[in-house]
Amino acid sequence: MRRICVDMDEVMADTLAEHLRRYNQEFDEDVTLDDLAGKGLWEITPVDRQQQLRAFLDAEDFFEVLDVIPGAQEVLKELSTRFEIFIATQAMAVPNSLGPKYRWLQRHFPFIPPTHYVFCGHKSILRADYLIDDQPRNLQRFEGQGLLYTAPHNLDVTGFVRVNNWRDVAEYFSHIKAEDCEDA
Amino acid sequence: MRRICVDMDEVMADTLAEHLRRYNQEFDEDVTLDDLAGKGLWEITPVDRQQQLRAFLDAEDFFEVLDVIPGAQEVLKELSTRFEIFIATQAMAVPNSLGPKYRWLQRHFPFIPPTHYVFCGHKSILRADYLIDDQPRNLQRFEGQGLLYTAPHNLDVTGFVRVNNWRDVAEYFSHIKAEDCEDA
Repeated sequence: MRRICVDMDEVMADTLAEHLRRYNQEFDEDVTLDDLAGKGLWEITPVDRQQQLRAFLDAEDFFEVLDVIPGAQEVLKELSTRFEIFIATQAMAVPNSLGPKYRWLQRHFPFIPPTHYVFCGHKSILRADYLIDDQPRNLQRFEGQGLLYTAPHNLDVTGFVRVNNWRDVAEYFSHIKAEDCEDA
Repeated sequence: MRRICVDMDEVMADTLAEHLRRYNQEFDEDVTLDDLAGKGLWEITPVDRQQQLRAFLDAEDFFEVLDVIPGAQEVLKELSTRFEIFIATQAMAVPNSLGPKYRWLQRHFPFIPPTHYVFCGHKSILRADYLIDDQPRNLQRFEGQGLLYTAPHNLDVTGFVRVNNWRDVAEYFSHIKAEDCEDA
């Protein structure tokens, strides 16, 4: 069976929405997703607020309360009947996120077993056929077929197969026939 | 540069010694390593104590206090000058271990960056040239060259390249010439 690795933040979980919500609340701002076209929240944040921007991620409750990106549950449930699904998330930069990410996955994606969670740093470590990720650098390090999941920060990035939403993901994998999913 | 993945429990960290210590203390027993030749602690534990055996692992302090297996630091430090070292540990069966394992690695192996930690379940997910592990099933799932690190439970296992201690690991990799460590 072929194997798909799926990134969590901004692919399965709406990390940016929660980060932005806390940012706007703390600093009494009104930054919108449109303001972030082509750049990350880090890039538009003044130097004297960077420490707080990071502190939002370190909060014990941050990664527990994230919304699920629409379509992720339905599409991954269907794909899990035809592919091996692994969740591969860069958790090591925010060690406080390890427990919350585990619990979030169990709550929202109970059909994916914890043996298929991978909390890692460099995604070059993944042995898989596909990786769905919003970070171009992760796709560059990955040796299989990368799919760039659209997020505001990567709107201007070219050179990757792009999926704009989970409907696009379903469509992409619908073209991969069952016989291609068998191990060689 | 070639990549070596290294398991934590019973390869870098003396998990069994601590598990045995708590077992003997709790149940007023005197089980020794010799009693465990060819089997795991789980196998010699009566059914009515299995729940407690598991509870030892769930304790917040368990994975923080483990001793380092002798030689692991020195040999990994040397190997890290010639190979990419990743730590690959099955952490998902004991989610309480995620934070403690992260802190233990930082404390005892500060020369390995957290971006090279992989907390996973199935080790088939690892893309690496070598895996040093005490669990035969992990080596079977791994696609590169496996090295079975000797532990009481695997003494009778055959069919793998075996390393009895970290001196053996150093010896094994001393035969791999620098030019073999370059990427193709």
